[in-house]
Amino acid sequence: MSRIDLLARLETARAAREEAGLLRRLRTVDAREGALRRIGERTLVDFCSNDYLGLADHPDLVAALTAAAGRDGVGSGAAHLVSGHHREHAALEEQLADWTGRERALLFSTGVMANLGAMQALLGAGNVAARGASVCVQDRLNHASLIDGALLAGSRLQRYAHGDVDDAMRALRAEPDRGALLATDGVFSMDGDVAPLRELAGICRDEGAVLYVDDAHGLGVLGPRGAGSLAEAGLSQADAPLLMGTLGKALGCAGAFVAGPAAMIDGIVQFARTYIYTTAMPPALAAATRVALTIARNDTEGRRKRLGIHIARFRAGAEALGLPVMPSRTAIQPLLLGDPEFAMKAATRLEDRGYLVTAIRPPTVPAGSARLRVTLSAAHEADQIDGLLEALNAAIGAHP
Amino acid sequence: MSRIDLLARLETARAAREEAGLLRRLRTVDAREGALRRIGERTLVDFCSNDYLGLADHPDLVAALTAAAGRDGVGSGAAHLVSGHHREHAALEEQLADWTGRERALLFSTGVMANLGAMQALLGAGNVAARGASVCVQDRLNHASLIDGALLAGSRLQRYAHGDVDDAMRALRAEPDRGALLATDGVFSMDGDVAPLRELAGICRDEGAVLYVDDAHGLGVLGPRGAGSLAEAGLSQADAPLLMGTLGKALGCAGAFVAGPAAMIDGIVQFARTYIYTTAMPPALAAATRVALTIARNDTEGRRKRLGIHIARFRAGAEALGLPVMPSRTAIQPLLLGDPEFAMKAATRLEDRGYLVTAIRPPTVPAGSARLRVTLSAAHEADQIDGLLEALNAAIGAHP
Ligand SMILES: Cc1ncc(COP(=O)(O)O)c(C=O)c1O
Ligand SMILES: Cc1ncc(COP(=O)(O)O)c(C=O)c1O
Repeated sequence: MSRIDLLARLETARAAREEAGLLRRLRTVDAREGALRRIGERTLVDFCSNDYLGLADHPDLVAALTAAAGRDGVGSGAAHLVSGHHREHAALEEQLADWTGRERALLFSTGVMANLGAMQALLGAGNVAARGASVCVQDRLNHASLIDGALLAGSRLQRYAHGDVDDAMRALRAEPDRGALLATDGVFSMDGDVAPLRELAGICRDEGAVLYVDDAHGLGVLGPRGAGSLAEAGLSQADAPLLMGTLGKALGCAGAFVAGPAAMIDGIVQFARTYIYTTAMPPALAAATRVALTIARNDTEGRRKRLGIHIARFRAGAEALGLPVMPSRTAIQPLLLGDPEFAMKAATRLEDRGYLVTAIRPPTVPAGSARLRVTLSAAHEADQIDGLLEALNAAIGAHP
Repeated sequence: MSRIDLLARLETARAAREEAGLLRRLRTVDAREGALRRIGERTLVDFCSNDYLGLADHPDLVAALTAAAGRDGVGSGAAHLVSGHHREHAALEEQLADWTGRERALLFSTGVMANLGAMQALLGAGNVAARGASVCVQDRLNHASLIDGALLAGSRLQRYAHGDVDDAMRALRAEPDRGALLATDGVFSMDGDVAPLRELAGICRDEGAVLYVDDAHGLGVLGPRGAGSLAEAGLSQADAPLLMGTLGKALGCAGAFVAGPAAMIDGIVQFARTYIYTTAMPPALAAATRVALTIARNDTEGRRKRLGIHIARFRAGAEALGLPVMPSRTAIQPLLLGDPEFAMKAATRLEDRGYLVTAIRPPTVPAGSARLRVTLSAAHEADQIDGLLEALNAAIGAHP
């Protein structure tokens, strides 16, 4: 028989990655506290998590999780539309809508599922006849799940040059008849820069396209009361109808939501298969997230301010040392190195000095743009940032 | 401008659903305890959750969640491949592999993501060149996420008649050159019947296809030590290389895993975008799931036995009453009604009598096969089952 063996093919593909030095390896964190991670015998400072406000192990979140689990147990037991939708979910959805200034918010178990599901509904409207009847215009550096969402919905995918509003406009104009969605990260996950949201909202208005913003890395970090990159840009629901946010980054929990006009959100309920056919997140997680949201929103603990000070300190230090920072003012502060092997070597050197920083290599980033992705958090101390800068200087400073 | 307005289109599609009486509506559970759900002023017995062993609010799970959250906080803070992979995840993966008799298991945040990711890796091997080079042969009643997995991977999707091994064989033979994956639910989520796994394993062996079994509803319920439908059928990793299981149903928590040969699992790590580009589940959830697994596996509390007795009691009672049961020996016991409006009416009547049962209508099930999906749990009491039977008789007994 001439049939290709899929298992053998996967193994070959894996071996090719290994030979190219691009194999992904799992490391196990044995214990954690704030920004510290114990791995085996060593304790490292974590400069690669997305826990930007240091909320993941905040005692108030833990207390809320514990109290809710005592009342409601662990698993939700069913999909939202069956019997899994709990008062804690409903309350969190209301708080999220209120925080982001949207009419209604809908919870998903992960950001990946939120993007896939929203696109299934918006681009496919749930029926096969609609496949191909839409175009999804996306920034070239968008998150994988936005790209996959367009593919899964059977939409025509058009990518534009990173942050290039004119190119996005050209892509929209090239498809004047199809229903159009323009999707962009609010803050780009591997670069840390902010999308030109006001300009994108403008071309969407002019071209009759729907703007969809994935604010995984902006929510809690940017804008008044941490309401995210859209709030910072002064864009309301009328300007930017659909906002996706995640609960596992600045909010320190897990899950995600899509927020927007109530009728649209109910349309997503009807047609998003990643919403309909999956178990609702544990109610206790929703309870913890509500507490995280309140802390992030009111910021009485000054966490967002502290993060801002850390970002300024890191950038000033890195620039003084001539390190290859990128144009980012967010918690994501990559150092562009180019060569993947060098990025790996640099990460190893940093680790030897006690700092955990991920080397990001192709295919996660475009070829030739391997980097160290440093992320900052309110959980860090100023001297940890200074120590990291010193270590970075030793690890890559000599590099051209 | 002639552009279709996607928001208007979604709203039209939603309105059409509403007119057809097929709108999905969210209900909020205010509190729960065991199989009881308080909704507003009323307390109902839940006969639609997937908490088959009644573990979701087991005090040992709650204690494990609480203890782990006290140590490790709530969110994992990062993807597994960054710094989100915690000792609790690793330990759970080991226990899952051991329980299911597979070499290695890999955690995902949800079953949907596990199916999407495994298929991305197996059918696409992560590279666009592979798109279309594979065929994915699937039972017509497979879960939505298996269908979507094949679509997302760009594989050719061939569906065969439900449970029909000859039809599956024909589908494989029609594509003798493409790499082939045969995917099936172990226990079908809307019908409750078990796939002909031994026969499917046989044709996969003969035809050089990879067998992929989604055992969301078999794990914890079927087979020696609850190891699932494959264990019940006596199929080892050599016969059925890839097994997907969920943690949010019989195990009462949330999340999922794919288990199989270590090299394949590492291939999935490399190429499954729903694994690579997402936040790891909270370590405390993994800790709770480990306790659930031990309870389910050893069953010292006799929960599986109790569920089995409930299933027998329900079927005997329903048959005696002439209720339209379907050929299922699992915890999923649908009653086939046909007409969606009648199914809705029956669900309302049951609710008036204190029983929460979901009416399942197209498009979740094929046209003309609307049903009540009764699910049983060790959390039920015998008299609740008797009460349900009486209520069912009153609600649908008169129906032809
Ligand atoms: C921009 C962006 N969108 C979506 C996601 C996915 O969110 P989640 O981790 O909740 O699946 C991520 C990261 O994981 C992200 O960086
Ligand atoms: C057969 C089957 N597979 C997969 C899933 C998805 O699992 P999860 O709820 O963990 O996303 C479900 C139900 O939700 C299911 O019934």
